[in-house]
Amino acid sequence: MTERTYLDWNATAPLRPEARAAVIAALDAVGNPSSVHAEGRAARRLIDEARRRVAALVGAEPADVVFTSGGSEANATALCPRAAADVLLVSTIEHPSVLAGGRFRTDALRTVPVGADGVIDLAALERQLAAGRDGRRVLVSLMHANNETGVVQPVAAAAAIVHAVGGLLHVDAVQTAGRIPCDISALGADLLTVSGHKLGGPKGVGALVRRSEAITWPEPLIRGGGQERGSRAGTENVAAIAGFGAAAAAATRSLPADGLRLAALRDRLEAQLKAEFPQTVIFGAAAERLPNTTLFALPRINAETAVIGLDLAGVAVSSGAACSSGKVAASHVLAAMGVPGALARGAVRMSLGYATEEVDIERFLVAWRALAETLSKESRGMAA
Amino acid sequence: MTERTYLDWNATAPLRPEARAAVIAALDAVGNPSSVHAEGRAARRLIDEARRRVAALVGAEPADVVFTSGGSEANATALCPRAAADVLLVSTIEHPSVLAGGRFRTDALRTVPVGADGVIDLAALERQLAAGRDGRRVLVSLMHANNETGVVQPVAAAAAIVHAVGGLLHVDAVQTAGRIPCDISALGADLLTVSGHKLGGPKGVGALVRRSEAITWPEPLIRGGGQERGSRAGTENVAAIAGFGAAAAAATRSLPADGLRLAALRDRLEAQLKAEFPQTVIFGAAAERLPNTTLFALPRINAETAVIGLDLAGVAVSSGAACSSGKVAASHVLAAMGVPGALARGAVRMSLGYATEEVDIERFLVAWRALAETLSKESRGMAA
Repeated sequence: MTERTYLDWNATAPLRPEARAAVIAALDAVGNPSSVHAEGRAARRLIDEARRRVAALVGAEPADVVFTSGGSEANATALCPRAAADVLLVSTIEHPSVLAGGRFRTDALRTVPVGADGVIDLAALERQLAAGRDGRRVLVSLMHANNETGVVQPVAAAAAIVHAVGGLLHVDAVQTAGRIPCDISALGADLLTVSGHKLGGPKGVGALVRRSEAITWPEPLIRGGGQERGSRAGTENVAAIAGFGAAAAAATRSLPADGLRLAALRDRLEAQLKAEFPQTVIFGAAAERLPNTTLFALPRINAETAVIGLDLAGVAVSSGAACSSGKVAASHVLAAMGVPGALARGAVRMSLGYATEEVDIERFLVAWRALAETLSKESRGMAA
Repeated sequence: MTERTYLDWNATAPLRPEARAAVIAALDAVGNPSSVHAEGRAARRLIDEARRRVAALVGAEPADVVFTSGGSEANATALCPRAAADVLLVSTIEHPSVLAGGRFRTDALRTVPVGADGVIDLAALERQLAAGRDGRRVLVSLMHANNETGVVQPVAAAAAIVHAVGGLLHVDAVQTAGRIPCDISALGADLLTVSGHKLGGPKGVGALVRRSEAITWPEPLIRGGGQERGSRAGTENVAAIAGFGAAAAAATRSLPADGLRLAALRDRLEAQLKAEFPQTVIFGAAAERLPNTTLFALPRINAETAVIGLDLAGVAVSSGAACSSGKVAASHVLAAMGVPGALARGAVRMSLGYATEEVDIERFLVAWRALAETLSKESRGMAA
């Protein structure tokens, strides 16, 4: 196989070396963390250490971190009505695991729109909160940054609005934790979802974090054991948790430098695309974005074709979100931003990470030029 | 640290070398299985291979296996009412994740007792099914073998009773899959729970298996993604799933020989205990048991003291179930069998596995003799 260029870090990040070492060390630690013997206590210590590291990543107390099997489980856990009449308010660009509404009834789900720039409409949020409550409590769930566009949402401002009416705010920080500063108190989030594999930890682990002990945990999704202080039953995934902790610590250290470096790479890439292919549209470019993400389209190039063509050329990118079933669906995010379907079908996402270098961007550009030329010829040939 | 003797395999089994290798290889496979590029497809293939192996372990079709984060999640998923009036019937010796009732309302939960031998009372099951239905459908959840006593339950006979009244049977096979034959069709189970780490796979992975496509999957517990054919959202834990598959394959191969070997070791151990300490009580000895498990008590020896004393002597055993919170609770299993509290508080569980050898049993016996002598002296001293 030829050398590969991996530019799909928002789908999943390669495992950090520190996380790999921690996972392997933990695999070799026999013992159920619930057991009282030496083997059990050793496993327990690995979890405690990881809990401190993940807590530090988002500025929380270790006791306010509950480990889950990933971001989707953390979201499903967080989205739990506290009373029968509770209402759930989410933006139209949330991750499918949030749009599914967790344990809320379908008829208790409301949505808040985003603008053409991909930023949640705060005025609409305020109106929704004022209108739809009639005495009912509201849980609002917003993502910190969108997985497709990378657009960073005004979470702290939204928190002020939500808290002003006595609502609770859950923030899905799966794409931001470890990439940009993500302090639960600064964000004003009451509950925060973090994922291991998006920041260079292993797949299969995440966390739900609360801002303080004043926030009551939601009802457990998986019950029947006292693990995670009663918030999540089941033998802990010790190795993945240890790897998550190591990745969180590494991300905390490298975040400031990586952020600047990746933003520079991404900006150079976008400038080059615009210079060579002036018709390139970059989605969400008017808003604040994650340093590592670009979602763009070149009219007449279909994203599905592009992803396959780039893959054959050794470059892994995505067409919008990683689709969970292998089939390509239209992006609900671009639809929410009012992007016409024809243009949205061309949206290619490149997402970079700590190991991405100049040469990866160069390889992408070489492949993209070849692809654009081929498709352009074909398109002229068909027209002729 | 001195050499350790690990005899707590029912709490968690040391990772099999085949599983360790598979986990590490999968950790190095970048890529989200939902991505269409080469990295994504490589991750997808690892899951497909593991699915075939886990399916083969329990005699199911690969398409009828849904991977979860473990046995507790599989149980929580299985225990889902199909209609509002559905009733859940469980035995009194089930795992806490089953006793919690999943998504059934507390008032829809009924229990079936066990006899003094730790075997579920089939006549009582039949009576319960006849009495409590009044037109409502029943989901029955029974464990294949109990985690504390190792007593194997008459699941096939129970299945016939359950199916005769149109009920559905879920079987928690966490302690049997990979240890004794566990064929979903032979058991008559409609849904079956399997755990990775109990059979030498990694922690953090399990599966819910259905007997055939004629059984409708329960509503997903974690929603919002098309993974696992829509039955379980969230990026798959590729490394743990690959390790589970490798462990399942290894367990399938070694099961017949290991079963005979471990039963011989266990039987010799019990005979020795009875010979040296005639007051030893072995729980569930009158019933068919897992080959690897013995739960016993020697009057006047408190289990908590024994576990700590044995641990100091380098031997890891358990006092009944691994308690999930670190605190020792009375065994609900022994209580259900009618064992007096004073005797139950002495219950020590030893559970063996593929790597257990004669020398481990010898080391336990040496430590147990020393402990019994010390405690006996103390008890005489106190009495004097």
